[in-house]
Amino acid sequence: MEAKQTSTQSKARLGLLKTAHGEIPTPIFMPVGTTASVKAVSPRDLSEIGAKIILANTYHLHLRPGTPLIAKMGGIHKFSGWHGPVLTDSGGFQVWSLKELRKIKENGVEFRSHLDGSKHFFSPESVMQAQREIGADIIMAFDECTPFPSTAEEAQKSLNYTKLWTRTAKEWLYKNPPLHGYEQKFFGIIQGGMHEELRLQAIEELKEIEPDGYALGGLSVGEPAEVMYKIADLCTEHLPPDKPRYIMGVGTPWNLLELILRGIDMFDCVMPTRNARNGMLFTSNGILHYKSARHKEEEIPPDENCSCYTCKNFSRAYLRHLIHSGELLALQLASIHNLHFYLHLMEQSREKIASGDFEAWAGERIQMLQKPLPAKAG
Amino acid sequence: MEAKQTSTQSKARLGLLKTAHGEIPTPIFMPVGTTASVKAVSPRDLSEIGAKIILANTYHLHLRPGTPLIAKMGGIHKFSGWHGPVLTDSGGFQVWSLKELRKIKENGVEFRSHLDGSKHFFSPESVMQAQREIGADIIMAFDECTPFPSTAEEAQKSLNYTKLWTRTAKEWLYKNPPLHGYEQKFFGIIQGGMHEELRLQAIEELKEIEPDGYALGGLSVGEPAEVMYKIADLCTEHLPPDKPRYIMGVGTPWNLLELILRGIDMFDCVMPTRNARNGMLFTSNGILHYKSARHKEEEIPPDENCSCYTCKNFSRAYLRHLIHSGELLALQLASIHNLHFYLHLMEQSREKIASGDFEAWAGERIQMLQKPLPAKAG
Repeated sequence: MEAKQTSTQSKARLGLLKTAHGEIPTPIFMPVGTTASVKAVSPRDLSEIGAKIILANTYHLHLRPGTPLIAKMGGIHKFSGWHGPVLTDSGGFQVWSLKELRKIKENGVEFRSHLDGSKHFFSPESVMQAQREIGADIIMAFDECTPFPSTAEEAQKSLNYTKLWTRTAKEWLYKNPPLHGYEQKFFGIIQGGMHEELRLQAIEELKEIEPDGYALGGLSVGEPAEVMYKIADLCTEHLPPDKPRYIMGVGTPWNLLELILRGIDMFDCVMPTRNARNGMLFTSNGILHYKSARHKEEEIPPDENCSCYTCKNFSRAYLRHLIHSGELLALQLASIHNLHFYLHLMEQSREKIASGDFEAWAGERIQMLQKPLPAKAG
Repeated sequence: MEAKQTSTQSKARLGLLKTAHGEIPTPIFMPVGTTASVKAVSPRDLSEIGAKIILANTYHLHLRPGTPLIAKMGGIHKFSGWHGPVLTDSGGFQVWSLKELRKIKENGVEFRSHLDGSKHFFSPESVMQAQREIGADIIMAFDECTPFPSTAEEAQKSLNYTKLWTRTAKEWLYKNPPLHGYEQKFFGIIQGGMHEELRLQAIEELKEIEPDGYALGGLSVGEPAEVMYKIADLCTEHLPPDKPRYIMGVGTPWNLLELILRGIDMFDCVMPTRNARNGMLFTSNGILHYKSARHKEEEIPPDENCSCYTCKNFSRAYLRHLIHSGELLALQLASIHNLHFYLHLMEQSREKIASGDFEAWAGERIQMLQKPLPAKAG
C-alpha cells in the first residue's frame, strides 16, 4: 500500500491500495456480499453508491454454489457481475461460530454445514485453494477465533493455531499460483483476545510471515467499544506503516471514525444493509427509524444532505409506506441509502484528512451520528 | 386516442394514447404496482425497461397508506417517484373477491379489510373521490364483477350494478374536477360474463356514457383461453375504433399476441413479476425455470437475444445461485427481465404492425413462447 499522508494530530492516514481490479483509496468501507451478492443491491447500484471493494465469504461460497463452480465461471468478478476489487474472508469466523457443529484440530476444522448438516473439513491449505478458485483480489488467512471473554491461556492456544495456519497458508500460496491470471494479495489476521501482550506477540509473529496486509480479528465480539478502541490503538502502534490495516466486522459509523483516528484503514460490516432491512437508517442528523408513525406524512427525504438515489427521489412517507406494505423496494432503497452513507462518510474522512482538519470534524460527527434524529430536524 | 394504423390482415392496430404525464404507444403492457410500487423494481429500472405506464390499485391504496395521504403528498407520481403515466384500477375486482368479507348493495359494497378486518364502504362516488386523490392519469369505473361460471340471470344482475355505478361515477367526476391540476381519463368496464348478448348490451350501454376508454373485465377468470379470445373478438367488433380497448388482468405473452390480433390495445398482469419471483422466466426461445439444476453451470444469460440489464450482465448459473441462496437480488433481476420481455414484445408488435407483417410473426411467436426452453438452445 502507498501511504499517502498521515495526520499530524492523530494516527488518521490516507492510503492507496492497488489491486488487480482497481485502486482503493483508504480509509474505506467494504459492503458485505456474503454469497457473492450484497443483499438487495445490484452491482450497478454499488458502483453508483461509490463502492470501491466488496467482501464475500469463503465458508458460504464453499457450501453454495461451491468454489469449483465459481472457478469454472471465470472467478467471482465474472460470476457476480461486480468487476471492481473483491476481498474474501476465509470462513475462519463462520466455522468457529458453528460451535456445536465443529471440531478444531491442529490441521484444520471439521464442521457440519448449517444448511444441510453435511460434513466438511477446512484446512489452511483447502481454504487457500477455495480462495484461489473464487479469485478475490485480497484473500484472508484461515484463523482460529478467540472467544470473548477468554483467559490468557485460551487465547494463547487459539493464537498458536492461527500462527501455524497462517504460515501454512502462505507456503501453500507460494507453491500454488493464482488460477485466474492476476495477483491475489494475502492478509494475515491478528488474534489474541483482549490480552494486550498476546496481540503484540501475534503482530510480531505475523510480521515474520510478511503478509500484504494486517487484519484485526476477534474484535466487536461483545467487549465494550472502549476496549476495542484500546486494542486497535495498541496494534496500529506496532504495525508496519506501509501495509493496510483492516479491522474485521466493525462497525457503526462512529466506530469507523474512532478507528480511523487510531490508524485503521479498512472496514466491513453487515450493519448498513442489515439495519436498512430492519427499518433503521443512518443520516447526517442522527438515526432514523423509517417504520415509525412519526414519518407517516413527511414529504422530505430520509436525509436532506444526502445525494443517494433514495434521498434524491423518495420521501420518508413513501419509504414508510413501502416497508409497512411488505414491498421489496423498501429494502432496496434503504440498503442503497445506508451503504451510500457509509461510503460517503469514508469519502468525507479522506477529504478531511487531506485538508488537515479530520480530528475536529470527526469529533463532532461521532457525537451527532449516534443520536436519534432531532424532533425538528429535516 | 389517436388510432394510427390498422392491419389489413387482422384487427391488430397501432395507436397513441395521450395523457397528462406522457404519450403511450399502443399496443402496450402495463406493469402492475398494486401498492404504488412494482414489486422489486425501482422507478429508474422501470424507465430503463421501457415501461410507458404503470398500474396501481385503489383498494390497496385506500387501505394503505390511505388516499388522502397520497393527495397530501401531491399525488401518486410525486409519492412513488414514477413520473410517467399511471392507471388506477377501481378496486371493484378486489372487493368483489373478498367474498365472505363483503356485502353488495345497490349503492355500493360494504367490506372488511383483508389486513385488519376493519369495516369500509365503497360507493361509485367514493371510489372516484379516492382516484381523484391518488391522481392517476387514467381512472377506472367502479364495477361489479360477474362470477365464472354464471347464469345469464346472475350476469344480468351484476351488469345492472355496473351500468348504474358507471353512470353515477361519470356524473360525480363531472361535478368534481381533478385535485392535482391535470386531466384524468375515465374508462368504463364491460362485464357480462361469457354471455355474448350481455357483453353486447354492456357495450351499447357504456357507449351512451361516452367514457375515454373501454375495458373488458371479468375475463381470465377460469374460462378456456379460446372463450376469452372469442369474447374479446366479439367486443372489439362493436367498440368505437377511436377509443382504447383495455383487457384487464391478462395474461401470458401469447395471450397478449392473440388479443392484439383481435384488436386489443392495453394489457396488465401480475404474471411477469409474480412468476419471476417464483422462478420462471419468459425468453425468446421459450420458458426457463431458473431454479432448475439444468442451469447450474450455464454461463450464458437467461435469454441471449435480450438486451435487459439482467441478460447483459448475469448468467443463468448466477441467477440460480442467488435464488437458492435466498438473495433478494434474484427477485429484482428476474422481475427486470420478465418485465423487459413483456415491454419488448409490445415494442416488437408495434414495429411488426407498422411494417405490415405482424400476423405471420405473431403466429410463430405464439407457438414458440409457450414451449419449454429446448434442451440445446442458448
